[in-house]
Amino acid sequence: MSVEKREILFENVTIIGIGLIGSSLARAIRWKWLAHKITVCDSSEEHRKLALDLALCEAATDDPVEAVKDADLVILCTPLGSYRSIAEAIGKVMKPGTILTDVGSSKASVFEDVAPHIADDIHLIPGHPVAGTENSGPEAGFRELFDGRWCILTPNGKTDEEALNKLKKFWEQLGSSVEIMDAAHHDKVLAITSHVPHLIAYTIVGTATDLADDLMGEVVKYSAGGFRDFTRIAASNPTMWRDVFLKNSDAVLEMLGRFSEDLTALQRAIRRGQGDALYDTFERTRALRQGVIDAKQD
Amino acid sequence: MSVEKREILFENVTIIGIGLIGSSLARAIRWKWLAHKITVCDSSEEHRKLALDLALCEAATDDPVEAVKDADLVILCTPLGSYRSIAEAIGKVMKPGTILTDVGSSKASVFEDVAPHIADDIHLIPGHPVAGTENSGPEAGFRELFDGRWCILTPNGKTDEEALNKLKKFWEQLGSSVEIMDAAHHDKVLAITSHVPHLIAYTIVGTATDLADDLMGEVVKYSAGGFRDFTRIAASNPTMWRDVFLKNSDAVLEMLGRFSEDLTALQRAIRRGQGDALYDTFERTRALRQGVIDAKQD
Repeated sequence: MSVEKREILFENVTIIGIGLIGSSLARAIRWKWLAHKITVCDSSEEHRKLALDLALCEAATDDPVEAVKDADLVILCTPLGSYRSIAEAIGKVMKPGTILTDVGSSKASVFEDVAPHIADDIHLIPGHPVAGTENSGPEAGFRELFDGRWCILTPNGKTDEEALNKLKKFWEQLGSSVEIMDAAHHDKVLAITSHVPHLIAYTIVGTATDLADDLMGEVVKYSAGGFRDFTRIAASNPTMWRDVFLKNSDAVLEMLGRFSEDLTALQRAIRRGQGDALYDTFERTRALRQGVIDAKQD
Repeated sequence: MSVEKREILFENVTIIGIGLIGSSLARAIRWKWLAHKITVCDSSEEHRKLALDLALCEAATDDPVEAVKDADLVILCTPLGSYRSIAEAIGKVMKPGTILTDVGSSKASVFEDVAPHIADDIHLIPGHPVAGTENSGPEAGFRELFDGRWCILTPNGKTDEEALNKLKKFWEQLGSSVEIMDAAHHDKVLAITSHVPHLIAYTIVGTATDLADDLMGEVVKYSAGGFRDFTRIAASNPTMWRDVFLKNSDAVLEMLGRFSEDLTALQRAIRRGQGDALYDTFERTRALRQGVIDAKQD
């Protein structure tokens, strides 16, 4: 991993929300020398103090207007449900030409929630680094989080080409490979690769949590049989995930429908003792695993 | 990890089925000097050759009768669906006092499939080391697989105390912590900690596999968002898992019913935009994750 000083694309970067992703961004920007000043905006006093103590930024405030007024790049790193009110607050006070982006896991909703509230001379380009862990908060971040990972940008027909290239270059400087994609398509792909997997992980851990207490201790004890991977996924930030499901509900419900049909078919095969049907499904899924390994995604 | 020579509890150990678990057992028995002779029985010529080439055993045969005739301990490491025919073949030819155990993930079915076919002077004690990986075959095994993991033994009212203690000691020598449990209870616990998680992992990877080809490439590409963990689980041996679901169908269907109800409730909450219901579930599951970490299971 390279640490040489890079071209400074943005003098002043403002990060709104200094959790896992926001604080990882701040660390990565510093590590790669990608900005002269980082300003953090967070409603939590504890988070602001941590951001300053950890030297993640030059300034920290709870006022979004104050935070964005000198920014060349503003990155929303808060849960998706907060975008609309933040956009209402900052939409008309940013400098002309400022790039406004985000890191949320749903993209069509960003145009719906943010675009109506911002001035015409602001470049709104939704983004999504496909990276993360199950941990939350400013202390959970780390500077290598985006290194070697994908970042998806979802411009629309109105997006300024130059601004898009600049943001693309910024993510590449952070070590990511950038893909340009239509927002609706992104939401469909992520529904199956991330949102539905998280929902079913949350569900099964919830199902286990509801079991009688005597069984619960054993569930924890023998979790190495497969369950522990689900508990890790289901330990992710609840507010963030609540908002993902609410904001990408159409694509999630569509994929969930397919999943439920497929699960019902397997359940029926188990009840009827149809071993061949089970075997065929279990054999077929191996090809996709090989694809994931070949693509160096695990 | 200690490698000193241990007390030899069994002169001759026969391993039937030299896949991931069988070959790990052979390696661990050699590593810890726990037997004088290991005999392998496997229907695959390739597996038998590998077992000899990898020095996992002194003798390899495809004839179960030949394999067990001098054994003090016989360990079934084949898929659960093969137990009945193996028991029919070896049930009356083992030496009096031989301990017959297994490593399968369903335990009540072992009494049903094996007990009726074996002589009264054989000690049948079903067992289940809660350990494994998604890989299969003699080359996938490794000697540390059972080290620091749980092994569950499920004797019944007729089990000889001395034989049980000997088998318990054997697993402890392999580095495992042994738990004694009722077979039906084991099957219930494993349904939620292992069987249903595997079934839903297989299901979601199958759902993704059915998507249009253009989406599939992207599913692989962005699998780091959660999906890749499911592909790993769903890469496990299809024959083994087919048999687990057929042999532990009652407990699996019961847990699957609970899971489906819970998933339907979350699906409904998403459709209706009920964020609080989603948040409550996502928040509640964190406690169980902490339990898994505290129990050093991840």
